[in-house]
Amino acid sequence: MKCRRCRAAAVIDLPRHNAAFCTECFRRHCREQVRRALDEHRMVREGERVLVAVSGGKDSLACWDLLRALGIPADGMVIGLGIGDYSRDSTRYARDFAEARGWPLQVVDVRERFGFDVPTAAAATRRAPCGACGLTKRHLFNQVAIEGGYDVLATGHNLDDEAAVLLGNVLHWEEEYLARQRPTLPGRDGFVRKVKPLVRLSERETAAYCVVSGIDYQVEECPMAAGNRHLAYKEALNAVEARSPGTKAAFVAGFWSRAHRRFAEARPEPTLGACTGCGAPTPGTVCAFCRLQARAAG
Amino acid sequence: MKCRRCRAAAVIDLPRHNAAFCTECFRRHCREQVRRALDEHRMVREGERVLVAVSGGKDSLACWDLLRALGIPADGMVIGLGIGDYSRDSTRYARDFAEARGWPLQVVDVRERFGFDVPTAAAATRRAPCGACGLTKRHLFNQVAIEGGYDVLATGHNLDDEAAVLLGNVLHWEEEYLARQRPTLPGRDGFVRKVKPLVRLSERETAAYCVVSGIDYQVEECPMAAGNRHLAYKEALNAVEARSPGTKAAFVAGFWSRAHRRFAEARPEPTLGACTGCGAPTPGTVCAFCRLQARAAG
Repeated sequence: MKCRRCRAAAVIDLPRHNAAFCTECFRRHCREQVRRALDEHRMVREGERVLVAVSGGKDSLACWDLLRALGIPADGMVIGLGIGDYSRDSTRYARDFAEARGWPLQVVDVRERFGFDVPTAAAATRRAPCGACGLTKRHLFNQVAIEGGYDVLATGHNLDDEAAVLLGNVLHWEEEYLARQRPTLPGRDGFVRKVKPLVRLSERETAAYCVVSGIDYQVEECPMAAGNRHLAYKEALNAVEARSPGTKAAFVAGFWSRAHRRFAEARPEPTLGACTGCGAPTPGTVCAFCRLQARAAG
Repeated sequence: MKCRRCRAAAVIDLPRHNAAFCTECFRRHCREQVRRALDEHRMVREGERVLVAVSGGKDSLACWDLLRALGIPADGMVIGLGIGDYSRDSTRYARDFAEARGWPLQVVDVRERFGFDVPTAAAATRRAPCGACGLTKRHLFNQVAIEGGYDVLATGHNLDDEAAVLLGNVLHWEEEYLARQRPTLPGRDGFVRKVKPLVRLSERETAAYCVVSGIDYQVEECPMAAGNRHLAYKEALNAVEARSPGTKAAFVAGFWSRAHRRFAEARPEPTLGACTGCGAPTPGTVCAFCRLQARAAG
């Protein structure tokens, strides 16, 4: 197996691209895919300040590394979510990565700052922990980005994530979610623009990118997310992809280029005011995060 | 395991309906599902004449049996497609079924009537045999229905078929196919109405219906269709269904009730004239079936 570009020994084959690459050409391929995503979906404009939502896992660290490799001086932010050893280790991977490179990383610990963590929030709300966790992350990443004067929040969602979420939304015809599912979600009052620079790279590619780039990352899956529905969607898509390489990429790209517009009107933008607790934009009086904090902080 | 309706010993459980049924209550359940499909999608009006497209497999025989059980005096039609023993056996199952019940069945043999068969058509066109086979069936079932004064052509597509086709159309965002994918396709000049009365019954249910009803059917899959893409889509959906029973039914029903309208304008109706060969409606001068016959008949 030889590298398609330089004919050296290849270290990875990508059936979807009908190609194999050596280490350096593979890293170049990853940069090229991120550059194309940034261009196609107008993710970052010249001179804008970018904050990367870092978890300590392969995707968010690859995202940060690749943005920097493309000349975008992004900063990072990690949230200590209080999910035992898993969160402690995740934060440590993020810190080690940032310190070794001298890149600015903000660390926000929810227990220290807000008096609760994901397990206590899940218990207090009697809902699945992923709900409280997602709400906390969306709120804090946006809030810190706004306060820090950032224009863009970049997340590490990869092609498999996007395809699995899209499949779930399509299987249940979640029209409002389909209307919102875009690689670039424009900013508006109180919200920074949100972008997904890794949407052209599969999970396998981001993992390989970290390995060949010497990036140490949290390999464990979150212990609270075990058995969640998206894993079944990923497995289903992997079965189809194995038989027809490129299906996932065509599914996601075709949705954005052709089908998304058909759902765009399904979600009218609600009118937002400022949360009386924290000032964040909210359709009500108190935002969902402050309501969660009120119930969960003990 | 007890029957949900009568508490007798159950012979089948249906996780999607959170139910188990004895033989008689299961057959009643199947009739009920077909009756609901007929009503929901206005498939057959009082007094209309219905022709069932019969293959000799479980779905088409169950479809015919269930329509008759609901008081619709449907006739049948089977096409001898010339795919060796497979076609011979399929036609025999259809004949035996019809004769045992005294129900009218028309048999059209493509080799006798048109001088070609599916294998020679596939060879002549150098395309996948499923293309020539589908074209032949669509053309002849419609033509015979029109000539015989039928109002409606009923096919045995079940829930798994519909869900797999829908998944394939969604994965590739085939907007024109999505616009056409409906349980009832209205008739127009030269085309009878086409309906799918089994869309609320899974493959497993139609097979079980045949078994408990003493209907002998062709169990073999068509030898020319092996490895076709829809099998991968069915497997993918089965994996999701196993974890979340009801997903397939919600996927198909939600598409029709909510999403289909978003694609409806993707396929403007072409203007049709009469084929100079056979008189069938066609957008060109000679219809696709006559062109196929011209190339394949030897």
